[in-house]
Amino acid sequence: MRIVVDAMGSDTHPGPDVAGAVMAAREFGEEIILVGDEAQIQVELKRHDASDLPIHIHHASQVIEMEDKPGEASRNKQDSSMHVGLRLVKENQADAFVSAGNTGGILAVATLHTLRRIRGIKRPALGVIFPIKERPMLIDHGANADCKPEYLLQFGLMGSQYVERIRKIDSPRVALLSNGEEEGKGNILIKEAIPLLADSGLNYVGNIEPKEFVRGGADVAVTDGFTGNLVLKTAESVASYMSDTIRQELTRGIFTSIGGLLARPAFIRVRKQLDPNEVGGAPLLGVNGIVIVCHGRSNAYAIKQAVGQARSAVQHDIVGAIRQGLENSLAVPANSEL
Amino acid sequence: MRIVVDAMGSDTHPGPDVAGAVMAAREFGEEIILVGDEAQIQVELKRHDASDLPIHIHHASQVIEMEDKPGEASRNKQDSSMHVGLRLVKENQADAFVSAGNTGGILAVATLHTLRRIRGIKRPALGVIFPIKERPMLIDHGANADCKPEYLLQFGLMGSQYVERIRKIDSPRVALLSNGEEEGKGNILIKEAIPLLADSGLNYVGNIEPKEFVRGGADVAVTDGFTGNLVLKTAESVASYMSDTIRQELTRGIFTSIGGLLARPAFIRVRKQLDPNEVGGAPLLGVNGIVIVCHGRSNAYAIKQAVGQARSAVQHDIVGAIRQGLENSLAVPANSEL
Repeated sequence: MRIVVDAMGSDTHPGPDVAGAVMAAREFGEEIILVGDEAQIQVELKRHDASDLPIHIHHASQVIEMEDKPGEASRNKQDSSMHVGLRLVKENQADAFVSAGNTGGILAVATLHTLRRIRGIKRPALGVIFPIKERPMLIDHGANADCKPEYLLQFGLMGSQYVERIRKIDSPRVALLSNGEEEGKGNILIKEAIPLLADSGLNYVGNIEPKEFVRGGADVAVTDGFTGNLVLKTAESVASYMSDTIRQELTRGIFTSIGGLLARPAFIRVRKQLDPNEVGGAPLLGVNGIVIVCHGRSNAYAIKQAVGQARSAVQHDIVGAIRQGLENSLAVPANSEL
Repeated sequence: MRIVVDAMGSDTHPGPDVAGAVMAAREFGEEIILVGDEAQIQVELKRHDASDLPIHIHHASQVIEMEDKPGEASRNKQDSSMHVGLRLVKENQADAFVSAGNTGGILAVATLHTLRRIRGIKRPALGVIFPIKERPMLIDHGANADCKPEYLLQFGLMGSQYVERIRKIDSPRVALLSNGEEEGKGNILIKEAIPLLADSGLNYVGNIEPKEFVRGGADVAVTDGFTGNLVLKTAESVASYMSDTIRQELTRGIFTSIGGLLARPAFIRVRKQLDPNEVGGAPLLGVNGIVIVCHGRSNAYAIKQAVGQARSAVQHDIVGAIRQGLENSLAVPANSEL
């Protein structure tokens, strides 16, 4: 298997990206293709003991930066590391693509310029594995700010296929993320999506509130990309705010400071459990290839984890699973019970 | 001043509601009118040393329960504690109404059957004070699942007036809560609201992400009620999930347990700082009267705090401030720069 790692992705590229690729090559033994500025990658690679690892470099002369406007950059920087890397996947010279770069850029290059949508998929979506114990998926978490009910149906289908294959859960519980579980709750989008999900053949378990989602009440929570993005970012922000507040309060007295020191292993375990870096990245589902999108702030470990995720998605043929799931769902006539 | 407390509001009414009213009468010295089942309220009142406090009972024969459908119940239970209490405010026999009951019920009874909208206000909204250090307001957090750009403009105006008067902040910073700060981010609703806010005469500081909101980047964050509700619930859920996880991890070893004990005062301070009960309730802004909506799980302390909030809103004439703010904003021609 060959996995492309975008060396020019993360906020402080190519350091974490290359270091993550090295860790991944060592841990998984798969071939890694580092795409980006060859000279810069060489420099980084020399800092690691990587000469015996199956790592190759594929030069790309341009970089889509975080500040770039996705639409423009995806049209104008045809030799960006994203274009070059995703073309390798499209042309079957690689099996998956991992990047911590500009999310909008990855979406545009993958969807409009290289891999393109799976036939029948209206909108590819980002599915994020929530960093809580039960590891549920939230989909879409940012690819589509404005959605139609049919998109949500397909997000549910794609999320369900992913979770079923990767986490080996039989008929995963799919829910709509909403402001209440009772009938009549939700905005218009949610209300219109309910009958589609209920009729879909998926294991639709109803509407779910954040409280139940955080406690593992569904394996896949479906939402539009605007709400999903705010929910994910709120969760991250509150977790980090709480950590900081606890740290501050612990250092306000001698006894609490000693207590904090003694309790340190517990805090480390909590941090590890809730660390977004642990889950790696977000799969972009609905395009003709495996794409894992990492946070711009990813460290080497997060990149390595994302390569592991990509590898697992290839092994379980997630693209084939989505194609198959879509065919099966189209075989069920819509509103078959009406 | 006379403040109505809905004795039949909270999940376990009338216990916390009456206890909160007693605490409030004692602390603030204002007259409290407990509305609800007289016999039940009498029983509860006897548990407190309240005979010398300025507390009155006003009987109401019906209760809008948490399971009731708001629209139906607000039409059919015209003698509910909500109807009776809000009528007292409407008829100037009381100055404010506090309830921990069915939120949809309070909205319906206040907006459609008693106080009604302030002239010119399209949709009343719930503004919640976020339980973080800077105490910013998130508005709307659940009254309007589907919004138009003009509603968001008015939410900003109402939130700004509230925060300016209550927190004594000159021209509060108003932001739109969005999935990114850059130009081009946001869903259609946000994108259409941006020029309205920018042109409004409010101190509009742009789009804000949850991270900046949690760090005090705005005094008022404007959102539709669906997103706002999910953001608030996600914040509460993650905070409670983290507390539980920390507690579990602390008890997994003898040293961490001792550490946890020593650090306990710090945890208590953190919990108090982030406790939604501290901030009391959410003001319903845009109706002709002061209404504070509390969480169904409110304890007596939260009810007392909400009475304090109501008192402060009366003292600062929030309804008058919103009316005035609306008039001033209408005096500014829309799109005056075009």
